[in-house]
Amino acid sequence: MFVYSRKAHYHETDQMGVVHHANYPKWMEEARVAFLDELGVSYGAMEAAGVFSPVVRLSIDYKRPARFDDLVAVQLAIAKYTGVRLEVSYTFYNKTRNELCATAISAHCFMKDGRVVSLQRALPEAHERLLGCLPEGSAL
Amino acid sequence: MFVYSRKAHYHETDQMGVVHHANYPKWMEEARVAFLDELGVSYGAMEAAGVFSPVVRLSIDYKRPARFDDLVAVQLAIAKYTGVRLEVSYTFYNKTRNELCATAISAHCFMKDGRVVSLQRALPEAHERLLGCLPEGSAL
Amino acid sequence: MFVYSRKAHYHETDQMGVVHHANYPKWMEEARVAFLDELGVSYGAMEAAGVFSPVVRLSIDYKRPARFDDLVAVQLAIAKYTGVRLEVSYTFYNKTRNELCATAISAHCFMKDGRVVSLQRALPEAHERLLGCLPEGSAL
Amino acid sequence: MFVYSRKAHYHETDQMGVVHHANYPKWMEEARVAFLDELGVSYGAMEAAGVFSPVVRLSIDYKRPARFDDLVAVQLAIAKYTGVRLEVSYTFYNKTRNELCATAISAHCFMKDGRVVSLQRALPEAHERLLGCLPEGSAL
Repeated sequence: MFVYSRKAHYHETDQMGVVHHANYPKWMEEARVAFLDELGVSYGAMEAAGVFSPVVRLSIDYKRPARFDDLVAVQLAIAKYTGVRLEVSYTFYNKTRNELCATAISAHCFMKDGRVVSLQRALPEAHERLLGCLPEGSAL
Repeated sequence: MFVYSRKAHYHETDQMGVVHHANYPKWMEEARVAFLDELGVSYGAMEAAGVFSPVVRLSIDYKRPARFDDLVAVQLAIAKYTGVRLEVSYTFYNKTRNELCATAISAHCFMKDGRVVSLQRALPEAHERLLGCLPEGSAL
Repeated sequence: MFVYSRKAHYHETDQMGVVHHANYPKWMEEARVAFLDELGVSYGAMEAAGVFSPVVRLSIDYKRPARFDDLVAVQLAIAKYTGVRLEVSYTFYNKTRNELCATAISAHCFMKDGRVVSLQRALPEAHERLLGCLPEGSAL
Repeated sequence: MFVYSRKAHYHETDQMGVVHHANYPKWMEEARVAFLDELGVSYGAMEAAGVFSPVVRLSIDYKRPARFDDLVAVQLAIAKYTGVRLEVSYTFYNKTRNELCATAISAHCFMKDGRVVSLQRALPEAHERLLGCLPEGSAL
């Protein structure tokens, strides 16, 4: 299980005194990029190879707000991967308050030259590494 | 049907050349505040009365990216309202490109003094106005 | 004198209860783009022609904080323009509170193919229009 | 010399392919909070004690753009501190590209109960620690 942790920044708070909800997709993206890096799939290298991975769906359940300076650990897992679609699940755990902060999923496709492509064809090595992250027993 | 329109700002774009997906919750919030204003329910006045309305759930389907300077119309409707929970649906329509940009929903509760409250009890007038927005025939 | 006005958004506030200072450069950019539009110089068209105008310097004096839903008018003027460097000055006036909010300047160069260029050479028509905005009597 | 380092996030880029200039004040704030933490002056504790430290002035010189995933080190120093006014200087050094990215300064006052206060009176211990950071030989 990959975990990306960082503190909540002051500029992420709003006048309710909590991290504004629009920042959570940013934490998810940061976690995703760090996860791919660890997997040996640099998102920067993917884009340099002309492959983009836009977010096609996002869903977040906010449980308990994070506050300024709270240390939040975002656990990330590949929920589904088919070569043309990637689904990632996230659990935000607030380590400062010892409570579940949020759960979320994001779904992604892969694009090249403005068209949806199979990552298997576009970047076979990245494809293999993502396949290796699927939960055991899950069919492609 | 309430519509909130504005152009996409340069600072909202990312290096993919499109409006970054984390900006959509901000557009939704702007549309919600404008809608409540028109309804005679000032969100500022609600907070001044000690009532907060945090986002408890968010879901966005990204269809076609918006780009810098595109004029986007966010249509907003109350999907559900029970006095303790509010669900709002959004359709992002890109008027510059004549295409559907995104659909989304947000869900909200109401808080006062750190506890979930019924808006009916906390702010009866705002409650009545939101009730009046429900689609005809929908039960409370 | 060109004026760009809009309300402060909820997502722009921080836990101090005011518009976070990092949003002011965004308002400046929005005002700049709107000003150029009115001048007949579309920033989107400039970039489409391969000409970029990065910010090289930014300076902001924060006088009185803007708050959620405040209507702020950003007055914009060309302070200096030489063909290779553009300086813009801004006055943020809070119309809701009838007070000066902030003053600021930004400085810009023009880039094409990764190199600094003269706008006069790169986009003569845009150059002429910017020249026409200089205060009377100011030498090039 | 205190240094705060982190990578540039994807959501910080714009369509020019670089970190958008409005993110620099956020990096400065992150660096400032981390610096104060190391100094034993928690910004969260300051606010909990009713003392706020708004930005009154900001000035940034952008030298060379940072790009997605670049590692940027923000060196921070106290340039001036009088008890009622704090000035902080920053040097953004891009470690990925081995080049100077930006230099900046921010100026701050201290507020309590809506009024400007002397930090020496409001929080004597924080005052002493900031005094200790002044360059040797600099008069108060």
